[in-house]
Amino acid sequence: MAKQKKMVEAITSMDEDFAKWYTDVVKKAELTDYSGVKGCMVIRPYGYAIWENIQKDLDARFKKTGHENVYMPMLIPESLLQKEKDHVEGFAPEVAWVTQGGQEKLAERLCIRPTSEVLFCEHYQKIINSYRDLPKLYNQWCSVMRWEKTTRPFLRSSEFLWQEGHTMHETEEEARQETMQQLMTYADFYRETLAIPAVIGRKTEKEKFAGARETYTIEPMMHNGVALQGGTSHYFGDGFAKSFGITFTGRDNTLQYPHQTSWGVSTRMIGAIIMVHGDDNGLVLPPKVAPIQVVIVPIAMHKEGVLEKAKELADKLSDTFRVKLDDSDNSPGWKFSEYEMKGVPLRLEIGPKDIEQNQCVLVRRDNREKTFVSLDNLTEEIPKLLQAVHDGLYEKALANLKEKTYTAHDYTEFLDIAANKPGFIKAMWCGDVECENKIKEETGGVKSRCIPFEEEHISDVCVCCGKPAKHQVYWGKQY
Amino acid sequence: MAKQKKMVEAITSMDEDFAKWYTDVVKKAELTDYSGVKGCMVIRPYGYAIWENIQKDLDARFKKTGHENVYMPMLIPESLLQKEKDHVEGFAPEVAWVTQGGQEKLAERLCIRPTSEVLFCEHYQKIINSYRDLPKLYNQWCSVMRWEKTTRPFLRSSEFLWQEGHTMHETEEEARQETMQQLMTYADFYRETLAIPAVIGRKTEKEKFAGARETYTIEPMMHNGVALQGGTSHYFGDGFAKSFGITFTGRDNTLQYPHQTSWGVSTRMIGAIIMVHGDDNGLVLPPKVAPIQVVIVPIAMHKEGVLEKAKELADKLSDTFRVKLDDSDNSPGWKFSEYEMKGVPLRLEIGPKDIEQNQCVLVRRDNREKTFVSLDNLTEEIPKLLQAVHDGLYEKALANLKEKTYTAHDYTEFLDIAANKPGFIKAMWCGDVECENKIKEETGGVKSRCIPFEEEHISDVCVCCGKPAKHQVYWGKQY
Repeated sequence: MAKQKKMVEAITSMDEDFAKWYTDVVKKAELTDYSGVKGCMVIRPYGYAIWENIQKDLDARFKKTGHENVYMPMLIPESLLQKEKDHVEGFAPEVAWVTQGGQEKLAERLCIRPTSEVLFCEHYQKIINSYRDLPKLYNQWCSVMRWEKTTRPFLRSSEFLWQEGHTMHETEEEARQETMQQLMTYADFYRETLAIPAVIGRKTEKEKFAGARETYTIEPMMHNGVALQGGTSHYFGDGFAKSFGITFTGRDNTLQYPHQTSWGVSTRMIGAIIMVHGDDNGLVLPPKVAPIQVVIVPIAMHKEGVLEKAKELADKLSDTFRVKLDDSDNSPGWKFSEYEMKGVPLRLEIGPKDIEQNQCVLVRRDNREKTFVSLDNLTEEIPKLLQAVHDGLYEKALANLKEKTYTAHDYTEFLDIAANKPGFIKAMWCGDVECENKIKEETGGVKSRCIPFEEEHISDVCVCCGKPAKHQVYWGKQY
Repeated sequence: MAKQKKMVEAITSMDEDFAKWYTDVVKKAELTDYSGVKGCMVIRPYGYAIWENIQKDLDARFKKTGHENVYMPMLIPESLLQKEKDHVEGFAPEVAWVTQGGQEKLAERLCIRPTSEVLFCEHYQKIINSYRDLPKLYNQWCSVMRWEKTTRPFLRSSEFLWQEGHTMHETEEEARQETMQQLMTYADFYRETLAIPAVIGRKTEKEKFAGARETYTIEPMMHNGVALQGGTSHYFGDGFAKSFGITFTGRDNTLQYPHQTSWGVSTRMIGAIIMVHGDDNGLVLPPKVAPIQVVIVPIAMHKEGVLEKAKELADKLSDTFRVKLDDSDNSPGWKFSEYEMKGVPLRLEIGPKDIEQNQCVLVRRDNREKTFVSLDNLTEEIPKLLQAVHDGLYEKALANLKEKTYTAHDYTEFLDIAANKPGFIKAMWCGDVECENKIKEETGGVKSRCIPFEEEHISDVCVCCGKPAKHQVYWGKQY
């Protein structure tokens, strides 16, 4: 039969070739397609539906804490990008430049936004006059462009989708609170919605965002021990405000500069979902962002009453859950493989014998555990099982994070771990960028992930140079 | 007092200078701001919240009819844009070109998408193989760029936000049904959600979309009698499919070309809302897309119990409606003006006397009608009043559309109406583009809006040349 050609083929095993496994999953689960522009991806319906669920959840969290959405232009004049020195140095080398508009050669080049700090500042300069105008708590959902040489779907692409929050505050204290609040919003979202645990903390000087005074980060660990920078929250102080001449009349009637933050997460999070939860059968989706939460597979579909019962269940459950009934001619086995590949959290099987006994079988994607459930109890049992999948995914990811986090007391130990045990390394650091550079060079890419909020005391001296230690740092390779 | 400076200033009257009135409303209602890139606007929180409500409503309509969202790259290689001859001729003159990516000069220019037919086709070519893969019902929410010389917020800007649906079908009949279904979805949305009536029909050859076989359009009339092309739905036949080599194996095992549609509406709709419903006091928002549906203004706010009661009401009503309590120090009169300017459909006033009588005052934005409502009946009365505002707006707009639609039996009459009575003109047409060109030239811009689905018989001959008439056309000037 023609459809047999579409039979789900096996994918590369994770342990054999993690990179190839990743690409296989992205392709077989129909998340993205390549496009004619190098490094720009097509996000297909199943991938985009995950992004829509992410957006909906995060957007509600942002709005609950008083943030409003806006839309800024996608183009930035070169002179505007240059207004903040550190910022332009960080971004100018990797932007795409528009030099022709319609029939005319442009007098000034315009870049496609790599991030929108300068656009927000240009606008804030016009609308902030008094302390009464503060705080401004703006967020934007959009696409940005950073010209990348080597790209991979979701993890690193020239164009990607993200949200960028940009806020202005009356005092430093309030801005610092906002920076932390948004970092914690991300951490909560990763844990509660994506079932992903992470290390959080402050970036070192070397690793912080171009123009920021401080950058905070959330760093989940992928299944293979490699880190993914999962989201960042920046405190800017009044640096941009000074460069852009943004001032306000304070409560004491003096002219002051507002204090600024920005924070963002992107479609990279879909990459994290794949690499944290996936397995050799494909994608494993956390129930809260899964486009299909329950797939109904009728068994012996052409026997009397089966399809009718399956449809009745689909109708009933659709009020509460994201449900798909697959009534195609493919075999149940084929369907099992397909929806495992697509990471659907729960599979509901129903056949003639089940109907006789007024029950069905629910199978968890994460551990293939089967439960027989009475058809009368489905609306109570499904939420419990979805929560069990969520909890199971989180526990497994947390175990992986703990198992692959090592402690290095001296440099020999550090190099040994770096060479042989992929994961995070906890070790002391003197605070000098030279040691960061040396470590990166001698380990083939291990970088400081962050300085955690609760530092451990591992030794008195820097793991690299032996000078007195200032901080405990999480180290690791990254995507 | 300092805040007195913020007192809402009067805006230009509509009758005095409609264009200036429009700009005043956009500015005073804080919908947009200008940016440093000519023709690109900043959509401010209040304007963007309208767009979010529009998106939510339309997206649900699209999904209900089986459409899925995707995301395509924002850049199009020049060679890809050139694949369909008519399409490139229509768009190439007005696109922005990226010629430099990062540090390298690009071998091939890339344009920022002015619309995404070619990107969808490139993707469809890869994923459509069998009739089983059809239909493909994809939609995308994104920003597009068309290099415009003269721009106005929402109405014509180089960058704008929109949705673009792109579908592929097994048969011509199915594709034609989709084209009509989506046009009717727009018409329903305009009527049911935006309270805007419109003329709908088919575009003439001259006015149709570049590359389309047929273009259908929805044409609402603004308060001043000028048309706004409010949304279009295109039937493409298999022209793009042939240019892009998109084929599928049909039910009869032969290789066939799929039949294509596309359809889109944009942030222009916000311009339509402003110009259809607005008045000399500012914006008037249809309740279904209003960011604030009910604004609560406490009277004698500092008297005991007033603010508490107002807060209690705000909490209670927020479960069902989009509510704002303004407890700022501004005077009630100032607040009245502000929320009239912002077009909030209902104002709820509550003061000490009202509280004594367990009632409040509800004032409609559209006609300033006041109703005293018992505090116990608010959740029943507010929906009725919001519906009354919606109906009132629709009726008023429909009356304007009817009043300003004229019939021209001969060319003298046509020219007289065109010169003296802004609005739509119903008149017969021979089908020749020469008459369209002549009419446009001799009237300073009157163009065919559409050929309605139910044509009237006004006379036997073309209003312009006197040759036998083929169609009745709606004519009018446009934004």
